Amino acid sequence: MKTFFEEISVSTRNRTEVIDITRHVEEITKKSVVTNGLCIIHSVHSTTAIIVNEHEAGLLKDIVKKVQQDFPKGAGWLHDRVDDNADAHLASSFTGPSRILPVKDGRLIRGTWQNIFLLELDGPRTRRVIVEVLGE
Amino acid sequence: MKTFFEEISVSTRNRTEVIDITRHVEEITKKSVVTNGLCIIHSVHSTTAIIVNEHEAGLLKDIVKKVQQDFPKGAGWLHDRVDDNADAHLASSFTGPSRILPVKDGRLIRGTWQNIFLLELDGPRTRRVIVEVLGE
Amino acid sequence: MKTFFEEISVSTRNRTEVIDITRHVEEITKKSVVTNGLCIIHSVHSTTAIIVNEHEAGLLKDIVKKVQQDFPKGAGWLHDRVDDNADAHLASSFTGPSRILPVKDGRLIRGTWQNIFLLELDGPRTRRVIVEVLGE
Repeated sequence: MKTFFEEISVSTRNRTEVIDITRHVEEITKKSVVTNGLCIIHSVHSTTAIIVNEHEAGLLKDIVKKVQQDFPKGAGWLHDRVDDNADAHLASSFTGPSRILPVKDGRLIRGTWQNIFLLELDGPRTRRVIVEVLGE
Repeated sequence: MKTFFEEISVSTRNRTEVIDITRHVEEITKKSVVTNGLCIIHSVHSTTAIIVNEHEAGLLKDIVKKVQQDFPKGAGWLHDRVDDNADAHLASSFTGPSRILPVKDGRLIRGTWQNIFLLELDGPRTRRVIVEVLGE
Repeated sequence: MKTFFEEISVSTRNRTEVIDITRHVEEITKKSVVTNGLCIIHSVHSTTAIIVNEHEAGLLKDIVKKVQQDFPKGAGWLHDRVDDNADAHLASSFTGPSRILPVKDGRLIRGTWQNIFLLELDGPRTRRVIVEVLGE
């Protein structure tokens, strides 16, 4: 069994934003020389999430709008007294900081319409995403 | 370490539907001959999700109703101009395309009330779920 | 490759509650003597979830409030005829029963503000969380 780790650095530009990191994750999977196993894509922040879906420009805007609708900023949260971003923590908590994909024959198993995205919820900031490939 | 892959094909009958795939995942886990490790249940689509919960007929209908309430179809999403299913993509993005269960002593670790379901969000269609068992 | 399993028992005190289990998960990771791999934190119940976020007292109350807002009890669900907790099952289904963290150099990879919590949705009860560390 082997494990391979690499970090992706992502500079976000807006408070809420969806950034495609598929190409980076695929390059790391290739570099890992793992044939069969899995790939963990983990963002080490509590105001981001990792999601998997289609890369279509309208949809990426819809995701941002849906986040803003379901987790409105400044809705009287207690955490806003400490740091004005409770909405971002809540969206991150329920969506999750990571996604995991199978790796087979040296490639990520993902559907044609399954790209990998960092979901920024409290940007703009520089974010760190850890990619681990584990297998044989 | 070994890895074992098998695909489940699921034909769904409604636009939004919850289909129990527990028995298939358990059979694949058994066939894998992995004693200790993990099992990834991954749907390769961007308008489905995998969820884990109780198989009670009323609850399965409640899940469908909750999806329809929280992700209403035709709510003015930009992606609907391309393909009339933005609601399904949004529900899939936030719920996630996979769940992972521990495997111990040759069996999935799951609670008495934890069955595994494909959540169809834009059916009816034929769907592919990849099951990977990894371990020793 | 090795795998190491240990169970955490958590006694919850309220119907909806967020309990920090980070210290327990870190101790189990240390005991596993796994250097590089991953850690699965899996709750074997269908009315709980595992989440990862910041441990700030106000935020933990905000998470409880958000659950109660988005998954109100007694909203006419069919499952309530069988067992009066459909709201808890729904919140658990969409949030997920587990989270997975990478393990590197004998430690969990998690951000400064990423603690691990059991999200109780139908307490008070005694809950079982299975922690599996897998790696080399």
